[in-house]
Amino acid sequence: MPDSPARRKAVEADMALDEGPRTEPPALARRLTAEALGTAFLLAIVVGSGIMGDRLSGGNVAVALLANAVATGAGLTVLILIFGPISGAHFNPAVTLSFAIQGECSRRDAGAYVIVQVLGALIGVAVAHVMFQEPLFFASTTPRQGVSQWVAEFVATFGLLATIIGCVRTRPEAVAYAVGLYITAGYWFTASTSFANPAVTIGRTLTDTFAGIRPGDAPAFIVAQLVGAVAVTFIFAWLFASKRAP
Amino acid sequence: MPDSPARRKAVEADMALDEGPRTEPPALARRLTAEALGTAFLLAIVVGSGIMGDRLSGGNVAVALLANAVATGAGLTVLILIFGPISGAHFNPAVTLSFAIQGECSRRDAGAYVIVQVLGALIGVAVAHVMFQEPLFFASTTPRQGVSQWVAEFVATFGLLATIIGCVRTRPEAVAYAVGLYITAGYWFTASTSFANPAVTIGRTLTDTFAGIRPGDAPAFIVAQLVGAVAVTFIFAWLFASKRAP
Amino acid sequence: MPDSPARRKAVEADMALDEGPRTEPPALARRLTAEALGTAFLLAIVVGSGIMGDRLSGGNVAVALLANAVATGAGLTVLILIFGPISGAHFNPAVTLSFAIQGECSRRDAGAYVIVQVLGALIGVAVAHVMFQEPLFFASTTPRQGVSQWVAEFVATFGLLATIIGCVRTRPEAVAYAVGLYITAGYWFTASTSFANPAVTIGRTLTDTFAGIRPGDAPAFIVAQLVGAVAVTFIFAWLFASKRAP
Amino acid sequence: MPDSPARRKAVEADMALDEGPRTEPPALARRLTAEALGTAFLLAIVVGSGIMGDRLSGGNVAVALLANAVATGAGLTVLILIFGPISGAHFNPAVTLSFAIQGECSRRDAGAYVIVQVLGALIGVAVAHVMFQEPLFFASTTPRQGVSQWVAEFVATFGLLATIIGCVRTRPEAVAYAVGLYITAGYWFTASTSFANPAVTIGRTLTDTFAGIRPGDAPAFIVAQLVGAVAVTFIFAWLFASKRAP
Repeated sequence: MPDSPARRKAVEADMALDEGPRTEPPALARRLTAEALGTAFLLAIVVGSGIMGDRLSGGNVAVALLANAVATGAGLTVLILIFGPISGAHFNPAVTLSFAIQGECSRRDAGAYVIVQVLGALIGVAVAHVMFQEPLFFASTTPRQGVSQWVAEFVATFGLLATIIGCVRTRPEAVAYAVGLYITAGYWFTASTSFANPAVTIGRTLTDTFAGIRPGDAPAFIVAQLVGAVAVTFIFAWLFASKRAP
Repeated sequence: MPDSPARRKAVEADMALDEGPRTEPPALARRLTAEALGTAFLLAIVVGSGIMGDRLSGGNVAVALLANAVATGAGLTVLILIFGPISGAHFNPAVTLSFAIQGECSRRDAGAYVIVQVLGALIGVAVAHVMFQEPLFFASTTPRQGVSQWVAEFVATFGLLATIIGCVRTRPEAVAYAVGLYITAGYWFTASTSFANPAVTIGRTLTDTFAGIRPGDAPAFIVAQLVGAVAVTFIFAWLFASKRAP
Repeated sequence: MPDSPARRKAVEADMALDEGPRTEPPALARRLTAEALGTAFLLAIVVGSGIMGDRLSGGNVAVALLANAVATGAGLTVLILIFGPISGAHFNPAVTLSFAIQGECSRRDAGAYVIVQVLGALIGVAVAHVMFQEPLFFASTTPRQGVSQWVAEFVATFGLLATIIGCVRTRPEAVAYAVGLYITAGYWFTASTSFANPAVTIGRTLTDTFAGIRPGDAPAFIVAQLVGAVAVTFIFAWLFASKRAP
Repeated sequence: MPDSPARRKAVEADMALDEGPRTEPPALARRLTAEALGTAFLLAIVVGSGIMGDRLSGGNVAVALLANAVATGAGLTVLILIFGPISGAHFNPAVTLSFAIQGECSRRDAGAYVIVQVLGALIGVAVAHVMFQEPLFFASTTPRQGVSQWVAEFVATFGLLATIIGCVRTRPEAVAYAVGLYITAGYWFTASTSFANPAVTIGRTLTDTFAGIRPGDAPAFIVAQLVGAVAVTFIFAWLFASKRAP
């Protein structure tokens, strides 16, 4: 995203407010810091609000998930608003992969993005655990597997990327709100509660709380997510008649 | 909607961001794909979040409906943001009928739209069922009938079209948010929980879950919806002093 | 509001989208229809979602009020988006009074507005009752009285008008969202659940359901609301350094 | 914030709508009134919705916190929309401190802001207590202490200031919504429910209700908040490559 001409123009317009014209996107160090900080906050929100909801809801799982969904959707919108102008606010290897396929993110940048996203995810989980007096890391024992769950992750990631690609093309100022609303809905309409993000999936293997997923179940989730991301990237390239797609 | 001059101008302005000036709306194949995909996602959201809410809420129907309402409102906003610039994001034969009456959608296009909306609805129900390990299709046994329910569907669809017509005329950038907020409210203030959409109604006959409606009760719902849509179309033509209305 | 120069300019700009330049706000008949329709929908939303929440929440009043608050806030935002460009979307004698004091609404128009607001409120209550199979009208038996409640209505209406006056002055495009969010908060932070509207108060005397208020308790509510509206009008005239205020 | 060139320009642009060009931000008396009124409403919302949620939720703390979080997030957004163009809508000594460090708020103004914020907080707590028939002030007995809680307040305030600084730089029109969404998430993902505001913390020592904090536990909260605010101010000065930061 930060490399696309449209995005760069938007970033420049944004930046121009305070700093006059720029011809370069922010330096890679700043962009990687933004990705790491944003992904860390995202995981702190997902895991932390899951713990809080679970502890306070007296066993009504729907109430816990409602709190988890509202907190995640609201928080993710804010993170995209904050960090979007710096790094594009991917926070998600599936998003980075899609932008790389679209030619809007170089292979070198994409690799670096993915590494700091995973690191940020681990930091975020640890921060949530410190706040809620849990061990820094402890493997999840929650099983999440089977064809239904994998279809759910395919659908969840397909929809997430559809949201991002569709809005970036025609109304970039709405991306942050659209993604937050999508994830709030996704927690409820997909049977897997929409992980839709390999870095988030890895982070969630290390918390045996409400949001956890058994480490052994993570690889299939990640495969389903990446397949969904690739599928929607090609379908939407045709749907939006983009000049950049084959 | 995609045929109206104002809409076309908006779409062109949108599209211009990435693709330079265009003089044509997207080709019919793309528009029909957008309607089918959007309506499929809409039904997956309505049915899927209904199942999830019902399973997790421990019998508190209000909590289940709150999850269902929030997920549907949030998700519908996102779908309109994604697909609006392509097809106008009707996802609803009552909306297509109203735009046809207003002269903003040709008869040929309207017929094609309705067909793919219904097909999309069926696909969406099946996808939800796969995700939640239910049969692909199974007829609902939930009765929804009587004058009160039909009045509710008339009111629900009257309000939905009022939202769309009012916002399209004077603040098109707000349509997606307004429709999502309207449906969130509609789930609660209409006794029928605001189906307000014949394609959605047909889809919901094929799921014996939270969101279902007995097949025999669907025709009266659809009649009430279409009457509501036609009524508001004429009243709002006068209210907004449109040159296009009789 | 529809008579103010700033508002008229905004309405004209809005209208210009579809209809070319206009020099007049909509005719009074259209504006009164918009006020009546909007206030009717507002009461249908307040009363209807109250009944639905109450019936489904299994006795958890907080869950019922949450549904009521979310539905009312979301619905009110939509009603202002729809009808704002026609009538200014007052739906509330306290709002009309404040605009009359500010010199933005003629005495004649204000009187007509108040009459149709009350009529619309009655219609909305009746529509909700038909949808939920209650008597057309039946007096509430819910007591809402005492100094604490009256202070709450003063605070609620002070805050509502602060929202409207503040946003109309400096960011009119945000009024609809701000009012909806304010009312959602008001249902929770004021002890009276923020009636904040004399027409709504009158309508709610005629429903012995969740949203009702005993007829004998209504006059004191209305007095508190009007005092709050007048107080904030003068304070904000100074705060915003308006040229139009004394 | 009110002293920064970008902010002043935005305020002037806002004000210009009604009043023609201005070269000065609002007089200090108006700005202090706005800060006091806004902080008073903020505390009334936090404390009042906490009491209401607690009383109605039948012991389900998650439902009470959900109401508290939704009301606070919605209400805070509205307060920033109303008072932002007057005073910058800090309502929070940690925010004022950060802007003072950034050179956007003079030392004299900052001191006056903090005083009226604390006074406003006390008034708001008293107003909530009158509405809900509690004593004007009564010290909280709710313990909130320990390293986990202090880390939570550090994280909460770090995130709040990240939201404000990030959005003010690149999309000032989104600040109000972003802050409201952040606080809604913060109530759930931080173990302390995100006080994130020294004036709010002081106010909440004086209410032995849902939102209270034991007076003896307040100083450590305030220290953690100020450390978080200072840390993010310097990190974001680098991240956003500001010319104003060292």
